[in-house]
Amino acid sequence: MNEPEFIAALRSLPLHPGARNLDDDCALITIGGETLVINHEMMAEDTHFLPDADMADVAWKLVASNLSDLAAKGAEPIGVLLGHSLGRDDARFVKGLKEALVAFGVSLLGGDTVAATGASTFAMTAIGRATHHPVPARRGARVGDAIYVTGTVGRAMLGFEGAAEHRDAFNRPQPRIIEGLALAPVVTAMMDVSDGLLLDCWRMANLNRVTFAIDPSTVPVADRARADECMRWGDDYELLFTASHTATLPVHAHRIGAVIPSGIAPLLLGGAFMVSSANLGYQHG
Amino acid sequence: MNEPEFIAALRSLPLHPGARNLDDDCALITIGGETLVINHEMMAEDTHFLPDADMADVAWKLVASNLSDLAAKGAEPIGVLLGHSLGRDDARFVKGLKEALVAFGVSLLGGDTVAATGASTFAMTAIGRATHHPVPARRGARVGDAIYVTGTVGRAMLGFEGAAEHRDAFNRPQPRIIEGLALAPVVTAMMDVSDGLLLDCWRMANLNRVTFAIDPSTVPVADRARADECMRWGDDYELLFTASHTATLPVHAHRIGAVIPSGIAPLLLGGAFMVSSANLGYQHG
Repeated sequence: MNEPEFIAALRSLPLHPGARNLDDDCALITIGGETLVINHEMMAEDTHFLPDADMADVAWKLVASNLSDLAAKGAEPIGVLLGHSLGRDDARFVKGLKEALVAFGVSLLGGDTVAATGASTFAMTAIGRATHHPVPARRGARVGDAIYVTGTVGRAMLGFEGAAEHRDAFNRPQPRIIEGLALAPVVTAMMDVSDGLLLDCWRMANLNRVTFAIDPSTVPVADRARADECMRWGDDYELLFTASHTATLPVHAHRIGAVIPSGIAPLLLGGAFMVSSANLGYQHG
Repeated sequence: MNEPEFIAALRSLPLHPGARNLDDDCALITIGGETLVINHEMMAEDTHFLPDADMADVAWKLVASNLSDLAAKGAEPIGVLLGHSLGRDDARFVKGLKEALVAFGVSLLGGDTVAATGASTFAMTAIGRATHHPVPARRGARVGDAIYVTGTVGRAMLGFEGAAEHRDAFNRPQPRIIEGLALAPVVTAMMDVSDGLLLDCWRMANLNRVTFAIDPSTVPVADRARADECMRWGDDYELLFTASHTATLPVHAHRIGAVIPSGIAPLLLGGAFMVSSANLGYQHG
């Protein structure tokens, strides 16, 4: 099975209401009047990191990518659980994990350790506390809303290629926790951009049965000459969100388009409909 | 690093109070007057299952082993998050996952899917609601307490070897959820027996700085002629607990010994001190 087929099969299982039909990145558990926001991510050698990667960077990215999903829900992080495959440079892994936890003010809750053979896989579950209700979701974008993205896309791509000033954007990404907390009361829908801006626009529009009309000239890209690639590369961990076009944003973000009624495709890019999500970003499996 | 070294290194990280110094199997998060009990387990090919294993059984065991840890905390399961490596028999995996969730009355909260190369690794985070405070822990055994175990140990071993009547004990273990809920108000300490009864006795005694005096003739074993092996094999998922020797137990369990002041070793087995935990059970990495 590929990923969409597998997720479709999972929808035949008993789903918790907080799973929201597996349409979102995080699950919600409401208990004692509070809502917990829970995210689980895996990182696999060869797929998410190269065998010669610095394990400190791998650990950092594992934390950052999890917290990025919490950020998109406006959640205040509580802690993380780690699933660790022993046998790589475990000391470097612990060092990077510590640096990330300290940098983001998050603590370790627990986890599990396995002796694994072959390629390594790491898992993390991050748990946060929702600060705004309703909790922002991928669903919620309305026709007439404006579309925004924080920061600049394409920095991780340039960092991966070796550009010194962007290397940290690839190796040590910063989840937009503060921005997510501030934006939660303002947005109508929000997600983090981990698989490429255009692909994530396509997905969000598709889920909401609307079309995202994106003006590429307004998208903040790290290299204007390579704008198409910047909008398709993943790993940037910025926030993509929709909000009323009259809303006053509490943090800086770039307005990159507008939500319009569903057209022949979920994405209208510079006047051209993108019927397929192929070639819009990174897709698993 | 091996597992104890890695866990020791993790203790230098910022730990959540609910991590309880990483001495326990589950983390606790108290929010809105409720306490959530959270467990994370990984299963790796070659280590936890053979390459030719039925993936339906692997999925079932992943759920069961997670819920077994919740059972030892007297927690009522809420749901699970799955970390799945695509590429094995994914349809069988979903089938076994569904059977386990239905059997145990638990729902899927979410998760993540990765395309992985080589040996597969699966991860699961289980979340439950504590039903009794204080939440039972590995810590808490007191000198004078009696030591108990539910069920029979060694069944998973016989099932692994092919004995038809014990095959389900290995492939489709039953976490002691109901027993854990009933026992939570009575026990002074509790854990599940996943790595072998004697090793887990040794660990619990060591953590509590006491000695567990175990009378092997009272240990319920699946094959009396192979009692030593039955007490050392893992995967049985019974509950090991201590309670006042005058306590009335709400469920059936076997009294296998008594907690005595710390002697020269954490385990006194039929009159012989076990100084080392080597050869008492299954140890990772």
